[in-house]
Amino acid sequence: MTNPLTPDALEAELRKIGAERYHNRHPLHKAMYAGNLTKGQLQAWALNRYYYQAMIPVKDALLLARLPTPELRREWRRRIEDHDGHEPNTGGIARWFKLTDGLGLDRDYVMSLKGLLPATRFAVEAYVHFVRDRSLLAAIASSLTELFSPTIIPERMEGMLKNYDFISEDTMAYFKPRLTQAPRDSEFALSYVKEHATTIEQQQEVLQALEFKCSVLWTLLDALDYAYVEGNIPPGAFVPDRS
Amino acid sequence: MTNPLTPDALEAELRKIGAERYHNRHPLHKAMYAGNLTKGQLQAWALNRYYYQAMIPVKDALLLARLPTPELRREWRRRIEDHDGHEPNTGGIARWFKLTDGLGLDRDYVMSLKGLLPATRFAVEAYVHFVRDRSLLAAIASSLTELFSPTIIPERMEGMLKNYDFISEDTMAYFKPRLTQAPRDSEFALSYVKEHATTIEQQQEVLQALEFKCSVLWTLLDALDYAYVEGNIPPGAFVPDRS
Repeated sequence: MTNPLTPDALEAELRKIGAERYHNRHPLHKAMYAGNLTKGQLQAWALNRYYYQAMIPVKDALLLARLPTPELRREWRRRIEDHDGHEPNTGGIARWFKLTDGLGLDRDYVMSLKGLLPATRFAVEAYVHFVRDRSLLAAIASSLTELFSPTIIPERMEGMLKNYDFISEDTMAYFKPRLTQAPRDSEFALSYVKEHATTIEQQQEVLQALEFKCSVLWTLLDALDYAYVEGNIPPGAFVPDRS
Repeated sequence: MTNPLTPDALEAELRKIGAERYHNRHPLHKAMYAGNLTKGQLQAWALNRYYYQAMIPVKDALLLARLPTPELRREWRRRIEDHDGHEPNTGGIARWFKLTDGLGLDRDYVMSLKGLLPATRFAVEAYVHFVRDRSLLAAIASSLTELFSPTIIPERMEGMLKNYDFISEDTMAYFKPRLTQAPRDSEFALSYVKEHATTIEQQQEVLQALEFKCSVLWTLLDALDYAYVEGNIPPGAFVPDRS
């Protein structure tokens, strides 16, 4: 780049990264919605992905702490409310348990994180640290994978409901609200980024932040695929019941 | 545990973790010394493992900063000297470049970290953060994988020299000094841990630190195996030349 991009050209670059690197292109995602996974493999996915869900409000709180105005904080605070709810047993994390419950996983075991793949822990913590340690602009830009989740969620919901008899609408309760939450959230983050990333350096930072975040999500699926589809479960990680 | 272990019983538990979880048991390590990898696969290993090597003095400097006495710091400082050398082109990192050079990788490309697997970055950074953020005792204990490296290094050196015609003694220069450095270093760390981990909680912390570190090394090989042996290279990572 020799000149900064216009805001719309920046958006186009961001969308190009999503088209190339978002995890809807990962083989494990395709296997999942095509109905090619066993119940044990879906358990491993739900168990590991739980840690990602559980850490989202933590990374959002770290981001909240860095926002300078009540307006910006009110906007970002909604994300935490969405995940943690307003009452016991509400919010995204509680809905994630409907999935792990429906798959027959013990809730205490899921929460204990004992069976987590080390790679899941490393990738999720890399995301949390990124949001804590990089610039506010990069931290906000790293949330922009949500721009692309409206493409993955209906595919996943429809495929999973159709292809696995142990998956019901209720088990999939997490995903439906995300169809309205994610676009609202990503619209705000995208506007912020388009307004504030005005220099070449800032725009590079924003693009790299989105690449980084795509690599976090992609790495989660890589590790699951290697461990539970290829059959290389590392020492100490969850072993599905063969029954 | 209901009573703390004796120092020797603690050592036995540490050695048991190594016997079960050290990466000499990983299929990729076995494939490597058995001569079953292509040059491109070895390039990917050397390139990714470079980041681990490059960050070792960083984690050791973070540990050094936390040691309370000149005696302890002098002891730990040797590790940094071993890796960074006393003159240009000496030390462990310089010797690692003999390996990447010998495998035909461009040194600037290796140093740029551009082709790194995201999982490598996440795992290595998890190790650096562990040493920075956990207790001094846990930080020291996390180095104890060196107790087991005398088992892996001769196996790797002999197998690689025998099985790959593009690997020479000079290419493998990194490993030979490690045969004396690693036992000296691990002897100190083991004595420290046996002396200072006297409560049940401290002993649990030490055992978990070694499990954590084993999972870092194991995860590096998992990611390489999935990307370069199974053929699932993630977006943006090094792609070996097919020639």
